[in-house]
Amino acid sequence: MRDVAIIGVGLTKFGELWDKSFRQLIAEAGSKAILDSGIGGKEIDAMYIGSMSSGRFIGQEHVGALVADASGFSHRHIPATRVEGACASGGLAVREGFLSIASGMNDIVVVGGIEKMNDVAGATATETLIMAADQEWEAFFGVTFPGLYAMIAMKHMRDYGTTKEQLAQVAVKNHANGALNPYAQYQREITLEQAINAAPVAYPLGLLDCSPVTDGAASIVLCAADKAKKYTDKPVKILGSGQASDTLALHARRDICTLDSTVYAAKMAYKQANMTPKDVDLAEVHDCFTIAEICAIEDLGFVKKGEGGGAIEKKITTLDGSLPVNTSGGLKSKGHPVGATGVAQMVEITQQLRGEAGKRQVKNANIGLAHNVGGSGATCVIHILEAV
Amino acid sequence: MRDVAIIGVGLTKFGELWDKSFRQLIAEAGSKAILDSGIGGKEIDAMYIGSMSSGRFIGQEHVGALVADASGFSHRHIPATRVEGACASGGLAVREGFLSIASGMNDIVVVGGIEKMNDVAGATATETLIMAADQEWEAFFGVTFPGLYAMIAMKHMRDYGTTKEQLAQVAVKNHANGALNPYAQYQREITLEQAINAAPVAYPLGLLDCSPVTDGAASIVLCAADKAKKYTDKPVKILGSGQASDTLALHARRDICTLDSTVYAAKMAYKQANMTPKDVDLAEVHDCFTIAEICAIEDLGFVKKGEGGGAIEKKITTLDGSLPVNTSGGLKSKGHPVGATGVAQMVEITQQLRGEAGKRQVKNANIGLAHNVGGSGATCVIHILEAV
Repeated sequence: MRDVAIIGVGLTKFGELWDKSFRQLIAEAGSKAILDSGIGGKEIDAMYIGSMSSGRFIGQEHVGALVADASGFSHRHIPATRVEGACASGGLAVREGFLSIASGMNDIVVVGGIEKMNDVAGATATETLIMAADQEWEAFFGVTFPGLYAMIAMKHMRDYGTTKEQLAQVAVKNHANGALNPYAQYQREITLEQAINAAPVAYPLGLLDCSPVTDGAASIVLCAADKAKKYTDKPVKILGSGQASDTLALHARRDICTLDSTVYAAKMAYKQANMTPKDVDLAEVHDCFTIAEICAIEDLGFVKKGEGGGAIEKKITTLDGSLPVNTSGGLKSKGHPVGATGVAQMVEITQQLRGEAGKRQVKNANIGLAHNVGGSGATCVIHILEAV
Repeated sequence: MRDVAIIGVGLTKFGELWDKSFRQLIAEAGSKAILDSGIGGKEIDAMYIGSMSSGRFIGQEHVGALVADASGFSHRHIPATRVEGACASGGLAVREGFLSIASGMNDIVVVGGIEKMNDVAGATATETLIMAADQEWEAFFGVTFPGLYAMIAMKHMRDYGTTKEQLAQVAVKNHANGALNPYAQYQREITLEQAINAAPVAYPLGLLDCSPVTDGAASIVLCAADKAKKYTDKPVKILGSGQASDTLALHARRDICTLDSTVYAAKMAYKQANMTPKDVDLAEVHDCFTIAEICAIEDLGFVKKGEGGGAIEKKITTLDGSLPVNTSGGLKSKGHPVGATGVAQMVEITQQLRGEAGKRQVKNANIGLAHNVGGSGATCVIHILEAV
């Protein structure tokens, strides 16, 4: 396999962007990434787009071709492919772009992720999002995503003594990071009391345990590693790419507190990168709910199963902790435009590894990990990056 | 790039399958392909699924993971990725599976394509299908897919003298082929008079110029070519894979009678296969409407632009013509479950190249081409196959 590096990144502001269209958002993120990379438009061999439910959100399928068109590349007729895996759509698009270069088919690929969630017609965002769960076994009977993750949280509290306060501390940390991120939806800190006492959504999860509904887009430019130095002094190499699946319905798992898709995807990514969890300096993990971040740091092997809540309490994962997690603000504070999230994670890790993360900059950041989950864990995709 | 071969194929009956679910259809097609290949379940490294609009048709996104789960592979946690490019979703899934093996990441990949279109809730099939066109420039103003292809047909008739009778002859030929295909939705011949006099849909297209609304699934097993002989005496090698895009909206093209995505994807596939159109013995082309088959044989270089209608009339593309096209019955008669179509085309070509196409068998079939289009041509993906 050929090695692959990231040579450019771009992001739109995340938030309720009522005055920007799907086309505008993806064109903005893509243009920023292309400008950042220094490539010319003629050098782009292909595009991959992650989007979860453009069909339901904006009444538009076929968004691979739409993005190539909206970006001004229709006259070049380049291949443009949409990839979907619910909230992991962005990470999957990165992986397909990576594989297409690794295969030798392409040299330079632009990967985009996008979701326009706020002006959905004919359904609520929650009704659309639940299509990431099992329609026949879960959605049909009325469960929502906060409900599914609330079940995970309840069992984690029972099995490991995890507390509502520890969940709240995840939100407090991620808002503290998001306050330093000019692209975040919520650029403000919250207090532990606010997080604990927020309006209940699905016990034990309150409003501040849940990631918001967000519009936004993200983009990265991938390049065959042996050609990356032509464009940038700071290429960021993809050392490992792992992907795994699990049952679509939560009840069918061996243990609802362990996302086996994370466990298996991590195993694959660590093996390819020839690394262990101890080698990772910082991580963006999929905190769609606060409990999800606690499960993630356990399932990624950063701490033992059941010790995630304690690790948050000990501030291991804060910006100046030994393993900063979600320096961008995470899905919780930066926002969660579902198809964009997996790509946005790659943007944050790249900026950190390049030393360009401003007030959020982690010291000695050499190895970063991005962890992107679909639904309640039926899909997981993980990338390990290194500045070279 | 590593070479890739097809070692197994499977298909469900195409039609109005009110008593079969999405899960049942994809599991049936996948099981047939796996059994046909002789691989064991433990040997599968990944799955790719093409589906256009499961979100609108059955209220379910995240169908990559669903398919791995429904096929009984959730305990193996293998990567499972959905790819979408409207009616080209199946062909794109084949291409991503191909690239993942070519890269060295995987050795054996199961590719599936599926659409369950008949029991759509909350919208009509036509309302869902138009999301393959441009929502802002086309769908919003009320155009339908028959309407878009009718415009192409009108211009083709004006520019090249193509006749309504020539369009009808495409339908007659494809029904004659479909009558020999036990998996086809319509296993019956039609007469030229019936085709010409069918109820009008969008002039000049009548009911028998249009492919139907279909439920169905198709699957193929891909394998690194150097390992294929371990499983089968008749591997079918993928010699070339081409993909291209164009403007999403029809009006923005330089010529609505030429699908430039076909032209560019064909150029890429022929180059990779080191072949010209003259080397092709048979083809499955994307005849969503009769005019589309005429444009396709022109844009693929089988005949000159404007001579497609005449070629149909001269019976060049019949089962015993010099270049049989749509031996399966095509989308017109076999049926068009949109996400399945691109994979089903690969099934037909594979069976022909293996000499297993029964009453539809083409003599001396060595090189076959599959041509899969999304929407009115914003995406095209082409594969060239050879029995080895």
